[in-house]
Amino acid sequence: MSDFAAPLARLIEEFKRLPGIGQKSAQRLAFHVLRGTREDAARLAQAVLDAKDRIGLCSVCNNISDGDTCPICADSERSPSIVCVVEEPHNIVIIEKTRQFNGRYHVLHGCLSPLRGIGPDQLKLKSLLDRLQNGAIEEIIVATNPTAEGEATAVYLSRLLKPLGVRVTRIGMGIPVGSDLEYVDEVTMLKSIEGRKEI
Amino acid sequence: MSDFAAPLARLIEEFKRLPGIGQKSAQRLAFHVLRGTREDAARLAQAVLDAKDRIGLCSVCNNISDGDTCPICADSERSPSIVCVVEEPHNIVIIEKTRQFNGRYHVLHGCLSPLRGIGPDQLKLKSLLDRLQNGAIEEIIVATNPTAEGEATAVYLSRLLKPLGVRVTRIGMGIPVGSDLEYVDEVTMLKSIEGRKEI
Repeated sequence: MSDFAAPLARLIEEFKRLPGIGQKSAQRLAFHVLRGTREDAARLAQAVLDAKDRIGLCSVCNNISDGDTCPICADSERSPSIVCVVEEPHNIVIIEKTRQFNGRYHVLHGCLSPLRGIGPDQLKLKSLLDRLQNGAIEEIIVATNPTAEGEATAVYLSRLLKPLGVRVTRIGMGIPVGSDLEYVDEVTMLKSIEGRKEI
Repeated sequence: MSDFAAPLARLIEEFKRLPGIGQKSAQRLAFHVLRGTREDAARLAQAVLDAKDRIGLCSVCNNISDGDTCPICADSERSPSIVCVVEEPHNIVIIEKTRQFNGRYHVLHGCLSPLRGIGPDQLKLKSLLDRLQNGAIEEIIVATNPTAEGEATAVYLSRLLKPLGVRVTRIGMGIPVGSDLEYVDEVTMLKSIEGRKEI
């Protein structure tokens, strides 16, 4: 068996397209599907299609949603005055896990990246400007990634939005809680010193 | 968004059923599906169903196969006199990768495990005994895992098959090639010394 049977080989190839799944993991997943029941396989296949077919973007914040507006935008308990801007919908998950942020979100679906040809027009910026029109937003927290591109996007947003009279802030950089100073890189250490607080 | 939209939550749950996929990996895979095209999703779903529907077991050796007999059993170039017994179909992959084994296989689909209630009747043993009937098999190489259960299965097979006049061998145990003695456990080291060869 220098090769797998064709349907198995195709399944392995499909699994390998998923992020973080290499040849060995893909084989393990595929053999798992073969060992499972027909019902298990059908449920997985249906879940893949349903997720793709039934989930779109929130018309307000561009978060993923199975309705016109996402549960966060639809939640009147959440403050409309503070909006956290993120690159991707999954970035919202970790912020929600803090259970402390009671504002809303705006998903850019990317960040500025001249090298990859992504400029302001490729980001969901127009809908953010539209949201600023009604005046309810007082602060924009820019929670793009702490990468060169994420930082560039944050600076761009600051220059774009501040003239409109809104406060623009950036999430704090520093050493991660529970880590060891020995393993911190110098840029993070510098950010940590710059962001020091009185105790 | 303390919870994901229902179709997304279901897809994450389905991915989490796969081996080695935890909550974070499942989320990453699900968001990847959402970012991809409808065609990508459909191809993945179809591959899952096709693999399950079109692949069965080889009628000779119980390897997975999309025909009545697997390519190895159908290959007349391969020696019928030597049969390698493995626990699971995917174990065949690594043996085939050596490109040195020119015999055939027999897949037990498990190993003896009294704790999990798996006895000889739950393994594909009868078809192995049937294969021994025609007298072409001269040697059985037992390539079950080097675990307590795999070893017990090997001993059981040896006692079962030797009286039938066939040679029963066990794959060699020892230190893995390219490893460092510092990281070898004592049982492996002992097996390595026991299995030493003249140089």
